[in-house]
Amino acid sequence: MIKKNSINPDLVEERKKCTFNTLELTHLLDGGAKKTEERKSRETFFLEDPQLQSKVPLEYLSHKEKYEEAVRKACIIFGKVQELQNQGRGGMDNFREILGGQLGSAILKDGNPLTLHYVMFIPTLMGQGTMEQQAEWIQKAWNCDIIGTYAQTELGHGTFIRGLETTATYDPSKEEFVLHSPTLTSYKWWPGGLGHSANYAVVLAQLYTKGKCYGIHPFIVQLRDEETHQPLPGIKIGEIGCKLGMNSTNNGYLGFDQVRIPRTNMLMKNSQVLSDGSYVKSPSSKLTYGTMIFVRVVIVQDAAHYLRKAVTIATRYSAVRHQSQIKPDAPEPQIIDFVTQQYKLFPQIATYFAFQYSATWLWDVYNNVTSELEAGQLESLPELHAVACCLKAVSSADAAQGVEICRLACGGHGYMTSSNLPSTYGLVTAMCTYEGENTVLLLQTARFLVKVWQNRNNLEKFTTVKYLGNDLNRDRPFQRSVEWIIYALQQTAARKIELANRHINERVQKGKAYEDAWNESSIELVAAAEAHCRSFIVETFYNTINELKVSKELKVVLVQLLNLYGVYTALRLTGDLLRFTSITGKDIETLQAWLEELLALIRPNAVGLVDSFDIRDEVLGSTLGAYDGNVYERLFEEASKSPLNAEPVNKSFKLYLKPFLKANL
Amino acid sequence: MIKKNSINPDLVEERKKCTFNTLELTHLLDGGAKKTEERKSRETFFLEDPQLQSKVPLEYLSHKEKYEEAVRKACIIFGKVQELQNQGRGGMDNFREILGGQLGSAILKDGNPLTLHYVMFIPTLMGQGTMEQQAEWIQKAWNCDIIGTYAQTELGHGTFIRGLETTATYDPSKEEFVLHSPTLTSYKWWPGGLGHSANYAVVLAQLYTKGKCYGIHPFIVQLRDEETHQPLPGIKIGEIGCKLGMNSTNNGYLGFDQVRIPRTNMLMKNSQVLSDGSYVKSPSSKLTYGTMIFVRVVIVQDAAHYLRKAVTIATRYSAVRHQSQIKPDAPEPQIIDFVTQQYKLFPQIATYFAFQYSATWLWDVYNNVTSELEAGQLESLPELHAVACCLKAVSSADAAQGVEICRLACGGHGYMTSSNLPSTYGLVTAMCTYEGENTVLLLQTARFLVKVWQNRNNLEKFTTVKYLGNDLNRDRPFQRSVEWIIYALQQTAARKIELANRHINERVQKGKAYEDAWNESSIELVAAAEAHCRSFIVETFYNTINELKVSKELKVVLVQLLNLYGVYTALRLTGDLLRFTSITGKDIETLQAWLEELLALIRPNAVGLVDSFDIRDEVLGSTLGAYDGNVYERLFEEASKSPLNAEPVNKSFKLYLKPFLKANL
Repeated sequence: MIKKNSINPDLVEERKKCTFNTLELTHLLDGGAKKTEERKSRETFFLEDPQLQSKVPLEYLSHKEKYEEAVRKACIIFGKVQELQNQGRGGMDNFREILGGQLGSAILKDGNPLTLHYVMFIPTLMGQGTMEQQAEWIQKAWNCDIIGTYAQTELGHGTFIRGLETTATYDPSKEEFVLHSPTLTSYKWWPGGLGHSANYAVVLAQLYTKGKCYGIHPFIVQLRDEETHQPLPGIKIGEIGCKLGMNSTNNGYLGFDQVRIPRTNMLMKNSQVLSDGSYVKSPSSKLTYGTMIFVRVVIVQDAAHYLRKAVTIATRYSAVRHQSQIKPDAPEPQIIDFVTQQYKLFPQIATYFAFQYSATWLWDVYNNVTSELEAGQLESLPELHAVACCLKAVSSADAAQGVEICRLACGGHGYMTSSNLPSTYGLVTAMCTYEGENTVLLLQTARFLVKVWQNRNNLEKFTTVKYLGNDLNRDRPFQRSVEWIIYALQQTAARKIELANRHINERVQKGKAYEDAWNESSIELVAAAEAHCRSFIVETFYNTINELKVSKELKVVLVQLLNLYGVYTALRLTGDLLRFTSITGKDIETLQAWLEELLALIRPNAVGLVDSFDIRDEVLGSTLGAYDGNVYERLFEEASKSPLNAEPVNKSFKLYLKPFLKANL
Repeated sequence: MIKKNSINPDLVEERKKCTFNTLELTHLLDGGAKKTEERKSRETFFLEDPQLQSKVPLEYLSHKEKYEEAVRKACIIFGKVQELQNQGRGGMDNFREILGGQLGSAILKDGNPLTLHYVMFIPTLMGQGTMEQQAEWIQKAWNCDIIGTYAQTELGHGTFIRGLETTATYDPSKEEFVLHSPTLTSYKWWPGGLGHSANYAVVLAQLYTKGKCYGIHPFIVQLRDEETHQPLPGIKIGEIGCKLGMNSTNNGYLGFDQVRIPRTNMLMKNSQVLSDGSYVKSPSSKLTYGTMIFVRVVIVQDAAHYLRKAVTIATRYSAVRHQSQIKPDAPEPQIIDFVTQQYKLFPQIATYFAFQYSATWLWDVYNNVTSELEAGQLESLPELHAVACCLKAVSSADAAQGVEICRLACGGHGYMTSSNLPSTYGLVTAMCTYEGENTVLLLQTARFLVKVWQNRNNLEKFTTVKYLGNDLNRDRPFQRSVEWIIYALQQTAARKIELANRHINERVQKGKAYEDAWNESSIELVAAAEAHCRSFIVETFYNTINELKVSKELKVVLVQLLNLYGVYTALRLTGDLLRFTSITGKDIETLQAWLEELLALIRPNAVGLVDSFDIRDEVLGSTLGAYDGNVYERLFEEASKSPLNAEPVNKSFKLYLKPFLKANL
């Protein structure tokens, strides 16, 4: 039904209007022409494999069938990953992309039940195992002789890791640890692939030896027989049920009834239990911070990717969809010509760039700090941690909201599964919760900011909070420029930190404990951390654009996007700007007019911009967003795949409806 | 596993703290003790019927099985509705509640495929059929000899009804209309129950007679054979596929290939086509506005109900869940003691009351205006339409956001289907799109506001826009009171209308057409309509509370909620307040302190408040929100219902995983 080679004429026109070379931008975003080529070849390798196609779209299957189809595909994907490795095209980076990133969520829309094997199990063995343990386990895991997962979260504990209840008690007589789940709430709950897929896990548990608790440590535990896959004795295991999204990731639960493992199954790179039961402490607890920060870096990158996917879909659809009238008796316009629609879409395009550049910054700094850490320098860690926390929180929350704005901008059709916007939301909103709940993370950033604020005479060693040393009383008169907006956001952040800190102190002076005063001031603390984060994102966007070496044509467009992101951010925070800078109501009108001007400037390049993201149709996975714009044909073709449509009359007519209708005659 | 009679001790403590009589509030919200009793008896009648239980939770079934189970239940529900009618307990109001409202979405979580029969098909026959047509069709429909739906939206047209493409061409030689779908985009797309359930539909089509088009008119069309349920010749019909939510409503598509129906199947109460093909015009096109407004009234009510359901779940969970630490070495607190958590939940409780009272106001005015309409007075219609539009938009958008805030406040467990928060979001977010897309509706309100603004010397006939006659330059100094907040919101709305109107005029003066100037100013117009709506909601809440005759204990709490809603709204709009009133930064601090004070005041009554909503466990349908608070037991019990957990080893191990693992050895 879909004319494969025919491009919707509206999109043809849009593409003619584009003022820059989209290929130049694609290469820029990929990190060079060579990287673009590699990405495309990886995509072809996976997406064009006939074994990785599904006969019926996943959404029509039962929960159980979805899982079974996911295991089928996951095994093929893992086989192909090994093939890549053998060709020297492997690497952790690509694994992430294939198993959970943009490409991964294209191959297995509802999640891959084996992902944690490469993404958590192997990295934990590498990061926390001794050389001997690595020799024993990594080869097996790398070869996929065993499949592992990572079991930390429990039914009763997620955020507060110290509160985990699973115990690992050392028995020196047998040189074994005894793993046990003392309560219902101590059951492991959530780990991906734990339900029916993995046969091994790294399990986090409270370590007891010689009658004393030493806190949370990691243990390798075999869960299922390698031959029969039956759960081993004492292992109570299953899946946790349906979720908002990711219904084939096979998230599981796990309880232990006095399960014994050898002493050597404790991962002992950092801390050790000797055979007599003596505990040898880790040199630094900060060594394990690295992985946590790494995962947050990845989330900022993913947030950017999900957002650009959604805005590609919504922008192309808005160029193709005609509706209503701007002028009476004129033909129905493309809905992208409604300024309210532009206001929904274009800031999301700009936000993608903003998050992308923050992710890149974070990735570079993470790598530097990791090198420092290996050299024993821990000084930069708190600042990196603080930035990673707030960037994870703000980017996941804004991206989730942005994806919903894009979905709603597609009207009823955006509500359809075949638009792929609902499941994109399911994936991006999950990031607000996992790997550190957003409010909790913002409060961690706030803790860092308040500490810095209290010692703000000594800011040399920092890079992201230097502005806290500025004189808050020195006003910078309003200008219609991103530079002024950055100043205003920094001023806002500083004043909010100052205010929250003052309110904590006032509460303490009234006799409250510091912790209670902190809790009572926490709404303002969260707001301060968020303001700090926004100023950082705009500044990073600004710095990146200023340093880019690109053609004049492209630079013009990137500066427009930077300006749009800046003014959009400023207008969302007019209350703060009016409170903390000398901006006036008249100036706000100037910003509003600038916003409207920028929307009009970006309008002719909107389709060109999302084309530059170069997201394959299979990755978009959307009836509304495909490159050719044949929206209605695709909606119809997807509907025809519904098993309900295979028969003109469903059996429920005979079973239920007819007897009911006839009973009333 | 769940100890049926044991209440979680945290909830026992919470309930002891409550300072008012929850039953008094329940009666107040139901509209009296008698109404409470009626509601409860209706709930028992449906929810305790063993035929209406499902063996396996719907979410584990395939799409097709979900539909079949839904038809089974829908027939039983319809039978019970008829039973109620026979007992004189029927009435349109109750139908809505049973088929689509709070009760309906408890019985059939994923939607009822037959709902539109009572909710749209019969009302349209009643509203638009002549006496003869009513005599012929309503009896059949009322008896459920036939099952109807309402087919308006097309693949290419939703918002802009005038753009519908389906044609009904009159053929005087046979006294028949010929229905036809000239294009792919003219296919009907979305009507509930259309796919495989209904055998009749009211179809909206462009009427052609004597070579002239007279616009959109309604026609009764038989779709399927009454005996075999096979689609009739020329009818191309099926379902549209999976969606974000409501996957058993069987939304369908429908195309016509020259389908003939008798002339008398056109619903002719308003306009007529005579047998010779002459067209007789409707006396007033506004007569059909009534239904549209009615549906929006219902949506505001539903938005309130979904929100209170979500906040009941999240509040009880937050009282039961313990996590992290406020003070070192203290036991883990209930998460409801974190002020950031209170800030997420309590404003949602207050928002429920705000929306509830606006819904009640709207319902009363709707009934008055309907009586006026029947007496031929159309004067109040534009104002009612304008209020209904913005209330529908703001309440659905805020409720959707509120439900998500509640879901995210429950952390990972809120992501689980068994929390019932994801599907509640699926239902509430759909309301942002259907029955008038929110941005489109806000622009309709804005059109009314600008018109009133331009004639603001004559405001006597209005009730909701009288404030536009105030002197905008007369300032009212800040007070910490809801009265001041109402003034400030009205001042904001008026100034925003004035500003948008001015910017339109400036653009016109620069040579733009009025329509283009309108479009270019539409971001500000939407913001103006929203500000107007928010001022209306707070004022209505205020007026209602002031007039309530309730106990002193309850009054105190309701005033706290009113204050919280007021200050929460004001703090979300600080930018506007600082721009348009004389409020200062210091005053904002006062409001922030007031907010924090109110959260602390409401804290002991939080569980009591949601208890007062008196939502049965089956209606909540949530592992996290049940009255007894046995959260973890329920999560576990629900997980055990997953068909995947029926076998320790899934067949995919033997089929895919084992061969893969062994291939690598």
